[in-house]
Amino acid sequence: MGADEPLQHEPPEGGPPGQDLREGAPPEQAPPERESPERESLERQIRFVLEADRLKTVARQSRITDGTRQENSAEHSWHLALMALALGGHAPAGTDLCRVLAMVVVHDLVEIDAGDLFLYSDSAAHARQEVAERAAADRIFALLPEPQAVVARALWDEFEERRTPEARFARALDRLQPMLLNMQTDGGTWVAHDVPLDQVLSKVELIEEGSPALGGYARAMIARAVERGFLRAVADPDAG
Amino acid sequence: MGADEPLQHEPPEGGPPGQDLREGAPPEQAPPERESPERESLERQIRFVLEADRLKTVARQSRITDGTRQENSAEHSWHLALMALALGGHAPAGTDLCRVLAMVVVHDLVEIDAGDLFLYSDSAAHARQEVAERAAADRIFALLPEPQAVVARALWDEFEERRTPEARFARALDRLQPMLLNMQTDGGTWVAHDVPLDQVLSKVELIEEGSPALGGYARAMIARAVERGFLRAVADPDAG
Repeated sequence: MGADEPLQHEPPEGGPPGQDLREGAPPEQAPPERESPERESLERQIRFVLEADRLKTVARQSRITDGTRQENSAEHSWHLALMALALGGHAPAGTDLCRVLAMVVVHDLVEIDAGDLFLYSDSAAHARQEVAERAAADRIFALLPEPQAVVARALWDEFEERRTPEARFARALDRLQPMLLNMQTDGGTWVAHDVPLDQVLSKVELIEEGSPALGGYARAMIARAVERGFLRAVADPDAG
Repeated sequence: MGADEPLQHEPPEGGPPGQDLREGAPPEQAPPERESPERESLERQIRFVLEADRLKTVARQSRITDGTRQENSAEHSWHLALMALALGGHAPAGTDLCRVLAMVVVHDLVEIDAGDLFLYSDSAAHARQEVAERAAADRIFALLPEPQAVVARALWDEFEERRTPEARFARALDRLQPMLLNMQTDGGTWVAHDVPLDQVLSKVELIEEGSPALGGYARAMIARAVERGFLRAVADPDAG
């Protein structure tokens, strides 16, 4: 992936790690040797991959389109990757979609420790979440071998900071996806949490920053959500 | 992604689709105009993204590492994408990891129609599955607008045919991942289905074809699985 090799920092392969562990050989015939750096590196990568599996148990607020259950953060991340492929043509010219893909794949790993925070939580909750997520990033990306850990962490920081076109497009997808799910599930989290329209529209601005085309699409969708009663256009004077 | 733009075939953005649908404007003030090609294209992409959501309901045989439930094909696809990032250094030199990423993200979409077939099913079941998956690919990728549909379908065909280094590496990850889960879940599907060792070793050959290093790792892991009693090294003479 050239300059975009986000997590690919292995030295060229030497002998295959593990080739000295022949099938069925009893341990005493293969005395423990000092592990080769390549083998140790691969072991750490596998540990990272196994730790990542836990993201499948982190529940989000959104429900999947058939409405049967809440979405988890692993399948959500996959959905964003698929959106990056399907909707990549709506990113600003020159956006490196490969980097966007890598970013959405790792963006939620911190939730293994920090959990998922509902988008429309209050600012104190968001501040606490930010601290928890940084601590999680410190722990989780450090599972990878050294140069790779730094590159992966930088990719997550880039997503969080939203300073590059890639990060802004990735964040736009991350904002658009739950809106699409809400439209398929009778208003979903908007209705369940009685989210005010102006808060939803502020998220649309973030989508527009990443992709004017997707922002326009989101705005039209929100208009339909108002028409269908999923979002209230003005404060209801009869409401408690 | 240059020559690697697997699904990125949008024309440069015109005006944002949907900008004519102002929030709250009653339908009669916005008479239905003929949709612009850009808008129609975006609508089709979103339909594809929503259809893809159904992959979250396709259950695989493997259990997630905490053993609480079966994995679904959407989170499995995400796990492969993460593996492509973490383990990409073990692909043969020159492998386009960006293409690998795109491939693993779309590789299981056909299961929306065809369902997941257990890896160790008989050859008749595999033949039926192949027919069902081709029909599914015909339907699902055709949801995308024209040039993009062809490119996405070609990416899926490439994965299936295993003729490129990218496809072989992607398939290696797809074979390695359930082995990793089995090792974390007391033998998982190996024990549940009493899978013979030689069948598991034949899958290790496919991993070696994609990545000698990961193949060596898998072979060592299978040896540990035998030691731990997850796989029987020889046919048990006492067995039924």
